[in-house]
Amino acid sequence: MHNRAHPTTLRVRYAETDQMGVVHHAVYPVWFEVGRTALSHAIGRPYSEWERRGLLLMVAELACRYRKPARYDEEVTIWTQVCEIASRKVVFAYTITGPNGEVLVEGETCHVAVSRASGRPVSIPPDLRAPFERVARGRRPSR
Amino acid sequence: MHNRAHPTTLRVRYAETDQMGVVHHAVYPVWFEVGRTALSHAIGRPYSEWERRGLLLMVAELACRYRKPARYDEEVTIWTQVCEIASRKVVFAYTITGPNGEVLVEGETCHVAVSRASGRPVSIPPDLRAPFERVARGRRPSR
Amino acid sequence: MHNRAHPTTLRVRYAETDQMGVVHHAVYPVWFEVGRTALSHAIGRPYSEWERRGLLLMVAELACRYRKPARYDEEVTIWTQVCEIASRKVVFAYTITGPNGEVLVEGETCHVAVSRASGRPVSIPPDLRAPFERVARGRRPSR
Amino acid sequence: MHNRAHPTTLRVRYAETDQMGVVHHAVYPVWFEVGRTALSHAIGRPYSEWERRGLLLMVAELACRYRKPARYDEEVTIWTQVCEIASRKVVFAYTITGPNGEVLVEGETCHVAVSRASGRPVSIPPDLRAPFERVARGRRPSR
Repeated sequence: MHNRAHPTTLRVRYAETDQMGVVHHAVYPVWFEVGRTALSHAIGRPYSEWERRGLLLMVAELACRYRKPARYDEEVTIWTQVCEIASRKVVFAYTITGPNGEVLVEGETCHVAVSRASGRPVSIPPDLRAPFERVARGRRPSR
Repeated sequence: MHNRAHPTTLRVRYAETDQMGVVHHAVYPVWFEVGRTALSHAIGRPYSEWERRGLLLMVAELACRYRKPARYDEEVTIWTQVCEIASRKVVFAYTITGPNGEVLVEGETCHVAVSRASGRPVSIPPDLRAPFERVARGRRPSR
Repeated sequence: MHNRAHPTTLRVRYAETDQMGVVHHAVYPVWFEVGRTALSHAIGRPYSEWERRGLLLMVAELACRYRKPARYDEEVTIWTQVCEIASRKVVFAYTITGPNGEVLVEGETCHVAVSRASGRPVSIPPDLRAPFERVARGRRPSR
Repeated sequence: MHNRAHPTTLRVRYAETDQMGVVHHAVYPVWFEVGRTALSHAIGRPYSEWERRGLLLMVAELACRYRKPARYDEEVTIWTQVCEIASRKVVFAYTITGPNGEVLVEGETCHVAVSRASGRPVSIPPDLRAPFERVARGRRPSR
């Protein structure tokens, strides 16, 4: 069960494969980002709105563990969850599953809120922070 | 009207933008490919099946005309159409439209059927060719 | 002979291949851009300087003709040439050659100078335009 | 000092930036791969040779820590080091530095040797393994 994890699906693109015949490993962080975008919509605070307000969520850390490869034309699901949200920091966890629900990749990203104007870390405004707090769970999605 | 053109939608990814603040121009050919994949499903001959049968549709020519840029988080539609299908060749045309139906990019790709084993051009088997012939229109999608 | 075409070399990345076992066709426009960057350095007007001065060279048209595929770990050369430079427009032509000098891909891009501030076409300042005029040749690189 | 770490340089491509105005975070794993390719050449066991012999080095884990962003047209250096090589496993560490030698990104990848034919883990042949053992250092590059 992906408790509190937000699912979004996509179909694997041909351009995302490499000559091993499977999805290239640097594509999954892009899918994590797709998951974050979908989650930010689901809780009513689209990331595009953050940027319009002059706030960037820069990636400070990334981790991926690859279990099984995804393949061209498969439908995969990205389960995205807020693990932690603090004054200037958000941590997300991701589980990517394949057509039969099997886990393909797991990962986490840690982000720092930065002012676009100054390039310096800033506090996340309460109205952007609150909806993330409501869905935060404090650890990896249990399954 | 996109007569006989097959529509598929996607949401613009953050990774697809560049420092101009819009989608990088080399992303649209990847979206054309997404459109081809969707069309091949719609007519019951998924491209993955071609490859399982040892046939590759290699891109021989590509053309793109950029009208207006797509932006992060926008939903765009790729209208894909078969322009021509011959013994060893398929030509597709594409129109990508933005959230308000405005044309963003137009393009065409010309493909040659190649045997995966020999690397040489081969004839497209009739059962793969027929459904493409049924939807072929012979020119750019009229709108 | 690549008369007046500026050469730059790169080694094919694994991530640039796809499951056909060769470089994905949407990678070549990225290499064209690498060629433009190198040419702009060679004539003393780095593109990064254009952007610092508030000018963008937006891609208006792209064409590629694929002759032979590039493969992982090969060294390829991008020959870039200015075909035309006008008040608000630049046209480049490219020939990409493989390890033995064979032609892999040919292409052209047409660009429009746009003001970053207004988003509107603008005239290219004479000091940026002149060095491009000096190397312009008016047609595809002869070989 | 990057003791025993192999350096390779590249110039940041425009396509590698995103609308934050800096290199997209999913690009650095691709640069790590460029570093591995360069290291494998330097020790006389190009990765392309591994694949010709039916061996794949699949990525099992990836970690990145982002310190400072790289920007378009900058020359960056990827310092790659073998941390560990075992019967079926190789661990690499990377430090990416900017034009002034400042650390931009650090990371590690863990790989498992897999047979292309069977898809199953296999032992790395001694002649491929030995040169990696000679340069292995057992921990992150000290600087």
